[in-house]
Amino acid sequence: MGELLAQSTATDWRRIDPDNALYLQLDAGRVVIELVPEFAPRHVANIRALARERFYDGLPIERVQDNFVVQWGDPAQKKPVGNAARTLPPEFTRPATAGLPFTPLPDVDGYAASVGFTLGFPAARGASGTTTWLAHCYGTLGVGRDNAADSGGGTELYVVIGHAPRQLDRNVTVAGRVVSGMELLSALPRGTGPLGFHEPPHQGTIIRSARIAADLPPVERVPIELLRTDTPLFAQLIALRRNRTDDWYKVPAGHIDLCNVPLPTRIAQQEPN
Amino acid sequence: MGELLAQSTATDWRRIDPDNALYLQLDAGRVVIELVPEFAPRHVANIRALARERFYDGLPIERVQDNFVVQWGDPAQKKPVGNAARTLPPEFTRPATAGLPFTPLPDVDGYAASVGFTLGFPAARGASGTTTWLAHCYGTLGVGRDNAADSGGGTELYVVIGHAPRQLDRNVTVAGRVVSGMELLSALPRGTGPLGFHEPPHQGTIIRSARIAADLPPVERVPIELLRTDTPLFAQLIALRRNRTDDWYKVPAGHIDLCNVPLPTRIAQQEPN
Repeated sequence: MGELLAQSTATDWRRIDPDNALYLQLDAGRVVIELVPEFAPRHVANIRALARERFYDGLPIERVQDNFVVQWGDPAQKKPVGNAARTLPPEFTRPATAGLPFTPLPDVDGYAASVGFTLGFPAARGASGTTTWLAHCYGTLGVGRDNAADSGGGTELYVVIGHAPRQLDRNVTVAGRVVSGMELLSALPRGTGPLGFHEPPHQGTIIRSARIAADLPPVERVPIELLRTDTPLFAQLIALRRNRTDDWYKVPAGHIDLCNVPLPTRIAQQEPN
Repeated sequence: MGELLAQSTATDWRRIDPDNALYLQLDAGRVVIELVPEFAPRHVANIRALARERFYDGLPIERVQDNFVVQWGDPAQKKPVGNAARTLPPEFTRPATAGLPFTPLPDVDGYAASVGFTLGFPAARGASGTTTWLAHCYGTLGVGRDNAADSGGGTELYVVIGHAPRQLDRNVTVAGRVVSGMELLSALPRGTGPLGFHEPPHQGTIIRSARIAADLPPVERVPIELLRTDTPLFAQLIALRRNRTDDWYKVPAGHIDLCNVPLPTRIAQQEPN
């Protein structure tokens, strides 16, 4: 894969829109999340508003459930949300319109009629091809909710830290994906209470701040680039990973799971002055 | 699932054979691994022999690669193996004989013609039905090797800590599965070198001891019981998880991935004197 990426050109990569980059600052470092307004416009706008209200600052990572999720927020729902909304109508799926690119995988998937990549995210489509949604893979950012479909809004957020819990697909609004610093979440000590909640709650890691990159001076933004998922190079990468031919592999898999496709990132070189 | 398990009877559960229980003692606690001689007889015998030689004692967990594996061993291959072997012929697959139970899942799988459970382990079968192997799921114990298929023997072992790397199936000898203490491995700090190796190597967590339960006095053994995977109760559990009907889920998945099937454990009650 390294050899293939070495052959990539500038057009194989894309920058994150600073409006869609959410930085979570922990004591151990920074987690960078790419938000995806094309799938969750109202929730992404609300997460931006919550960040601007400083809603997340000082909240704990209250839940770390092994092989499932880390979750942060304000379970008591006591912290004011200011101009943001506390709950929103669900954005679990959306229409698969012509304007929304979809690079399908030929590989069978048990959870959806078709899976592939849209805008750099693992995505799925229903049997009729008219509905699409983002898949829960390692690193996916979801919007926590109670039993009612419209009971989430972004005051509770979670990230997948285990085997893809695809049963959550179409049951949760997916708002983004961790693109850097994933290990700062996945290696957190597991919570000892039911469902991995910390007991007492304040034992969790604290989110020192959550900021939208666009709100920071350019010099403070992380110049992350992500490999595009709609290019011939990405198709080559998938083919190489589906059937590994290096000296170590003896039997090629002949298949790749949606959530096993790597989504490479890199730090952009400094632009010339 | 809790309600279903509450209905279980003694015959729904099994004890680990103490000959097949490997205890890894870390400073943070104990990891219990069930070894599986039915699939890897020579490797399991060799891992027992290495444990009895005290080979693993004091070795570091030298690699923690996010969303992939933790690995421990003696990469310099300097530590004597005593009466154990350093390398063995591979045990990547085995014949699917009549004596080997297999409870198939009806769910499609991209990596194998058929998947299901054998002796409590996630397993797969080839198209002809004559060959079977254990699947790489979260918690699977594999035998590290170099490029040659016969270059492993148990001096390097790894455990999966991320999304199932099923491309490793049939390329590695699977020797067991973590049944307790998984979070002691999955939450370890990630290595900062290539492939998640620690740099320098001694920064890794130390394995204080590795023991076979049968070598310990009964009072020092962990009385873990595992849910059997060849019972009507287990079939019910799978059906419940394939289509979740609790108040939270709005859209049932209609499918379950082999590596998403829970394999419950419990601590056995004290037996009467």
